[in-house]
Amino acid sequence: MENKQIKNEAITPREVDFAQWYTDICKKAELMDYSSVKGFIIYRPYGYAIWEEIQHYLDKKFKETGHQNVYMPSVIPTSLFQREKDHISGFAPECLICTKGGQEDLDDPLIIRPTSEVLFCEHYAKVISSYRDLPMLYNQWCSVVRWEKTTRPFLRGAEFLWQEGHTMHESEEEARTETLRMLDIYDNLGKEILAIPFTKGRKTDKEKFAGALETYSIEALMPDGKALQSGTTHYFGDGFAGAFGIKYQGRDGKLYSPHQTSWGVSTRLIGAIIMVHGDDNGLVLPPFVAPIQVVVVPVAQNKPGVIPAAREIAKKIQDAGIRVKLDESDRSAGWKFSEYEMKGIPLRVEIGPRDIEKGVVTIAKRHDGTKEVVNNDDVVERIKLLFESIHKEMYDKALRYLLDHVTEVHNMDELNAALEKGGYAKMMWCGDQACEDKIKELTNATARCLPFNQTPFDDVCPVCGKKASKVVLFAKAY
Amino acid sequence: MENKQIKNEAITPREVDFAQWYTDICKKAELMDYSSVKGFIIYRPYGYAIWEEIQHYLDKKFKETGHQNVYMPSVIPTSLFQREKDHISGFAPECLICTKGGQEDLDDPLIIRPTSEVLFCEHYAKVISSYRDLPMLYNQWCSVVRWEKTTRPFLRGAEFLWQEGHTMHESEEEARTETLRMLDIYDNLGKEILAIPFTKGRKTDKEKFAGALETYSIEALMPDGKALQSGTTHYFGDGFAGAFGIKYQGRDGKLYSPHQTSWGVSTRLIGAIIMVHGDDNGLVLPPFVAPIQVVVVPVAQNKPGVIPAAREIAKKIQDAGIRVKLDESDRSAGWKFSEYEMKGIPLRVEIGPRDIEKGVVTIAKRHDGTKEVVNNDDVVERIKLLFESIHKEMYDKALRYLLDHVTEVHNMDELNAALEKGGYAKMMWCGDQACEDKIKELTNATARCLPFNQTPFDDVCPVCGKKASKVVLFAKAY
Repeated sequence: MENKQIKNEAITPREVDFAQWYTDICKKAELMDYSSVKGFIIYRPYGYAIWEEIQHYLDKKFKETGHQNVYMPSVIPTSLFQREKDHISGFAPECLICTKGGQEDLDDPLIIRPTSEVLFCEHYAKVISSYRDLPMLYNQWCSVVRWEKTTRPFLRGAEFLWQEGHTMHESEEEARTETLRMLDIYDNLGKEILAIPFTKGRKTDKEKFAGALETYSIEALMPDGKALQSGTTHYFGDGFAGAFGIKYQGRDGKLYSPHQTSWGVSTRLIGAIIMVHGDDNGLVLPPFVAPIQVVVVPVAQNKPGVIPAAREIAKKIQDAGIRVKLDESDRSAGWKFSEYEMKGIPLRVEIGPRDIEKGVVTIAKRHDGTKEVVNNDDVVERIKLLFESIHKEMYDKALRYLLDHVTEVHNMDELNAALEKGGYAKMMWCGDQACEDKIKELTNATARCLPFNQTPFDDVCPVCGKKASKVVLFAKAY
Repeated sequence: MENKQIKNEAITPREVDFAQWYTDICKKAELMDYSSVKGFIIYRPYGYAIWEEIQHYLDKKFKETGHQNVYMPSVIPTSLFQREKDHISGFAPECLICTKGGQEDLDDPLIIRPTSEVLFCEHYAKVISSYRDLPMLYNQWCSVVRWEKTTRPFLRGAEFLWQEGHTMHESEEEARTETLRMLDIYDNLGKEILAIPFTKGRKTDKEKFAGALETYSIEALMPDGKALQSGTTHYFGDGFAGAFGIKYQGRDGKLYSPHQTSWGVSTRLIGAIIMVHGDDNGLVLPPFVAPIQVVVVPVAQNKPGVIPAAREIAKKIQDAGIRVKLDESDRSAGWKFSEYEMKGIPLRVEIGPRDIEKGVVTIAKRHDGTKEVVNNDDVVERIKLLFESIHKEMYDKALRYLLDHVTEVHNMDELNAALEKGGYAKMMWCGDQACEDKIKELTNATARCLPFNQTPFDDVCPVCGKKASKVVLFAKAY
C-alpha cells in the first residue's frame, strides 16, 4: 500500500537550499533552539533524548570494556594548559577565559575546558605509581567550550556535549589496541543504532589532534557530498606523560612513562543523523536511536471505543519494552500525521472505528512512506520485525550513497571532477604535506583519512607526480 | 558470629576529629581528589559511581512523573542574569565570570551558571504561548559553579554536580503541588536507597532561595549534630515570568503569566551518605546505592579449586542482577578485607578451601561487622534478603539518632542546651525575622525549616516572649 506523503511546507526542500533545510529541521522538529549567546544552543527535550539514546548505547559498551566514568573540573588554569606546547597552540585561539571570581581578578585565569587531557594528566601524575595501577581506563560525559566564530546547530558549536575517554597503559601496543578498539565501538554505534556507515581511517599529520602522535577517525558522508568527522581516537605515546611527570614502576622495578590515549564523540552525531536520513518532510529517525519508536494515532477518536482501543494497543506495545507515545490530544489526525512525520518517528500506528471492527491496525513507515494492515494480535511482533528491516534499509541506503560517492582519481582533473560530483576523491599520495596543502588551496577539500583498506590502485601522486604508496580520501568537509 | 573489626589506621577516628575523619574517608575510599583549582574537585570513579546510582534512581522517577531532560548553555550573559533583581543580588558575590573569548574582550561578560532559572525563563518566553504548552516539565543534569571561599569535598564546592528541574504551570495550585511532589521524590530517595531519614519542611523567608516565594527542603542530621540541607524545591509564583515576559493564552482566550517551580539535589548527597553511615573503619554504603554491592574474596586462593569456585559464585551473584566484584588479585586476603571495608561495600563473600569442601561461603556484613555461613545454593536469595534487612537497619539507626536529637525548647537556656547537645532545637516562633536573626547571632544556629508537622507545643516565642504559633527547627548547619 503506497501513501504519497504530503509535502510539509514548513521545511525548505533540500534541492532549494540544503543548509536551510538542515536548520529548518533542527528548529521545527524541536531538536534545539538558539540561546542569546552565539554558538551556545539549547538542547530541547527531543534533541536531548536522541543524545540520551546514544549515551545509553555507548556507556554500556564503555563499561563492558572496563572503563569507568569520572568527572573532572570544568575549568583549567592557564598555567596548567600551557604545559604541553603543541596542545595549547592548537586550542589557544578558541578558549573562553574566566578572569574574575567573586568580583576579584584571578591571578591564573581559568580556561573553560575545550578538552580535558591536561586535567586527566595532572590527576594521573598523582594516582599512577605502579604497573598495578594500569591500565587506567577513564571516561567523562560533559560539555566542552570552543569559542568558534562560525557555528551551526550540532555540527559546530561554541559549546557541545560529548564524552571524552582518557586512558593510560603499560605498553605502547596495549595503548594502540585501545585506540582502535574504541574506534570500533564508534563504528558499531553507526552500524547498530544510527544506521550510518562510517569510514574508518587514520588522519594525516596535518589533520591530527593537537598533541597526538596518531589520530583515527570515523567519517560519515552527507547527502550534499561533504564529509563529517564523527568521532576520533588518539594515540599520544608518552608525550603528555613526560610533560606532566607521570611515571610508574614497571614489573622490573624500573620507572617508565605510561602510554596514553583519548577518544570522543559528540552531539555532532545528531547532525549526522539529521542529514543522512532526513527528507523534505522532516526528520527520519532510525528505529534503535529514536526516543519515540512508535506513535499511536487514534482516527475519528470521538467515535465510541476508539480511545480505549488506542490505549490498549499503546499499552501492549509499551509492555513489550518499545518506546511508544499515544497522542489522544484534540488535534486532528491530519495534524498529528504531519507532526510525527516531521519528528521522524519510525512507525505510526493508526487505529479507527473500521480497524477496530476488523481487529486490525494500520502501520505507516516513516522512512519509505508505505503502510500495511496488521492483525491486533500480531502488532508487537510485526513492529519488532519492522525495526530490524527499517534499520537495515536505512543503513543500506546510506551505504549505497557512500559507495556511489567514492571516486578513484589518477590526476588533478579527475580529482576536481570527483569533488565537484561530491563525496570522496580516493587517490594515491606521496605522503608529502606540500601536496596535501596544495589540494586544500586549490579545491578547499581536506584529507579525511588514510582508510584502513590501503590497497593501492595507482603508483604516483596526482599532485607532484612522485612515487606514491598511500591511499587517501579527500573531500570537502563540515 | 561476631567479627571484631580491626581499626583501619589510615583514618582519623571520629571522636578525635570529625572533620578530618570525613576528609580521610573522601580521599582514602578514593571518592574524590583535589584539583589545582580550589573547590573544583575530581570525582573519582568510585565517587562518581555513587552519583550515577542516585541519577539512575531520580531520572527514572522524574520521567515517570512526566519530566523531560534538556541541556541549557553553561554560561549566562551578565545582562540576562540581571533581569530578576532578587536573584542576581543573591548570586552576584559568588559568580565566576568569563571576560575573554578567542583572545578578544567580551562586551557582555559571561557568568558560568550558578543555577539556570534565567536561561530556562529566556527559553520559556519563546516556546510557551498557549495553555496547551503547559505544564512544561524540564530537568537538567549538569555542573554548576559558585565561587565559594570555604569549600569541602561534596559538601560545598566551587563546582558541583546536580540536577535542576524547572517547570511552568497553568495554575498556582498545580505549581504548588509540583513543588511538594518533587520534595516527596527526594524524601523517597532517602527512604529507598540512601537509608537517610530526611526532615521535610518549609524555609523561613530569611533562608529561602533568591527570587523564590517559597522554598521547601529536606534536611538530614549528621552525627556531629549539624544539619545538612540535602535538597530544595522552590515555588516562584509568576515573578520570573513577569521579568522575562512569559505569557500564555488561557482557555478563555486571555493572556496569563504561568506559575513556576524549580528543584534540585546535588553531589552533596554523597557527603550525607559518608557522614550518616560511615564509621572509624571507613565508608559504609547502604546496599541499594552501593556501586559494588558484594565483593567476593577468595581465601588461600593459591590452593587448587579456590579461584574457580570464587568465579562461579561471583557469576551466580552477577547473573542475579547484583553489582558484584571479584578480587582475584595477588594481594593478601587481609589487605582485601581492609580495603573493601574502607570502601564500605555492604557484603563480603569469603570462599576458601574449607568452605568449598562444605559447599558453603561466609558472608560478612559491613554495617555491623557480623558474619554468617550460607549454603552455596542459597547465596543469591540470602544476599537479596540481607540487602533489605541491612537497608532497614541502617535507616532505622539513622532515624533513632534523628529522633534522639530533636529537643523541644521553651526558653533560651533550653535552646542553648539543645544546640550544645547537637541536633535540632524545636521551638515555637512568633514569625518575626528579628528573633530568627537574634538566635543566629547568639548561637550561630539557623532556622532549618518549619517542619510539615506543625503541632504546637507551647504558645510563646522564647526569644521575644510574644505569641507564637509556628513550629520551627533550629540547628547548626553545614
